[in-house]
Amino acid sequence: MKLKKQERRDAIKKEIEKNPFITDLDLRILFSVSIQTIRLDRKYLNIPELRKRIKSVARKNHENIRSIDGSEIIGDVINVQPDQEATSIIEIDEDSVFTRNQIARGHVLFAQANSLCVALIHKPTVLTKESNVTFLKPVKLNDTVRAEAQAVEITNKYYMINVNSYVKGSIVFQGTFKMYYISEDEQNG
Amino acid sequence: MKLKKQERRDAIKKEIEKNPFITDLDLRILFSVSIQTIRLDRKYLNIPELRKRIKSVARKNHENIRSIDGSEIIGDVINVQPDQEATSIIEIDEDSVFTRNQIARGHVLFAQANSLCVALIHKPTVLTKESNVTFLKPVKLNDTVRAEAQAVEITNKYYMINVNSYVKGSIVFQGTFKMYYISEDEQNG
Repeated sequence: MKLKKQERRDAIKKEIEKNPFITDLDLRILFSVSIQTIRLDRKYLNIPELRKRIKSVARKNHENIRSIDGSEIIGDVINVQPDQEATSIIEIDEDSVFTRNQIARGHVLFAQANSLCVALIHKPTVLTKESNVTFLKPVKLNDTVRAEAQAVEITNKYYMINVNSYVKGSIVFQGTFKMYYISEDEQNG
Repeated sequence: MKLKKQERRDAIKKEIEKNPFITDLDLRILFSVSIQTIRLDRKYLNIPELRKRIKSVARKNHENIRSIDGSEIIGDVINVQPDQEATSIIEIDEDSVFTRNQIARGHVLFAQANSLCVALIHKPTVLTKESNVTFLKPVKLNDTVRAEAQAVEITNKYYMINVNSYVKGSIVFQGTFKMYYISEDEQNG
């Protein structure tokens, strides 16, 4: 539906508040306007581009992460519930693909998932012990991969974490990670 | 045993021919001389330092690799028997460890092993399908990791490859990789 300029701007603001990770392209389709109009509206509303919104959310999430320095996480953590679940986003750039077929290299998806498992665990020292991963669908250059990690078992020695990764809602990667941790008591002892 | 200068130089030359990956430290112990003497002897013999010898062997091996461009392999491939076995070496530098504990990040060992599996397979297009990995012992900053890959099953769709990685002869990582490939016929078809 077409809206008047001010109505559209208010509506865009509300949409982005509801879903900070909505793309300009999605907004363009939602409001039946050009991408240029969306960009101008965002500028008027003083709302930064998607990439900056993601980075800003990721920076805030770093406060809730104990096991790894924010700058060392592979991907941007857009959600973290310590010891429960976490989500990160990564964009597949030229450094992450094989030049000859532009398909993302396996270790990039592995690194995103593994890094997210470390970030999820609310302990000072975490080490990966075992991992089983399946690459379900090739990921291409410029794809955005969203990884969702969930703790499924926590013992006094380790966490079992499941990770599912998606491109545009379609699953591309599944992994199970067994992560050992050192508790504060052991560190101080 | 102490040898006369020329005898020692001849012996050093033979040792390096026998094992191009012997370190100056190993040679120093073998010949009971200072590290400086080993360096001077190598210089006299016109034998480059270990790192350069590794890179030079890796470059030669690139000719036997079809599935990946040499520059895209993670680690230096020091041996490759196409479709059978391959070995690579990686040095753990500051970019590969967590800053807070100087332990190598899991995805670095995964990347070395996975990359080696791709390099081993003598097909133009190879994709990782599944992988089970175990991290047996923490790898530290400045460690040299030697990964050995062996094809254990080859079907008309995939390869199963086992990888064992070692630091100074002690196993640190084990992995199984199921790798899909596209044969020439399918590519041309």
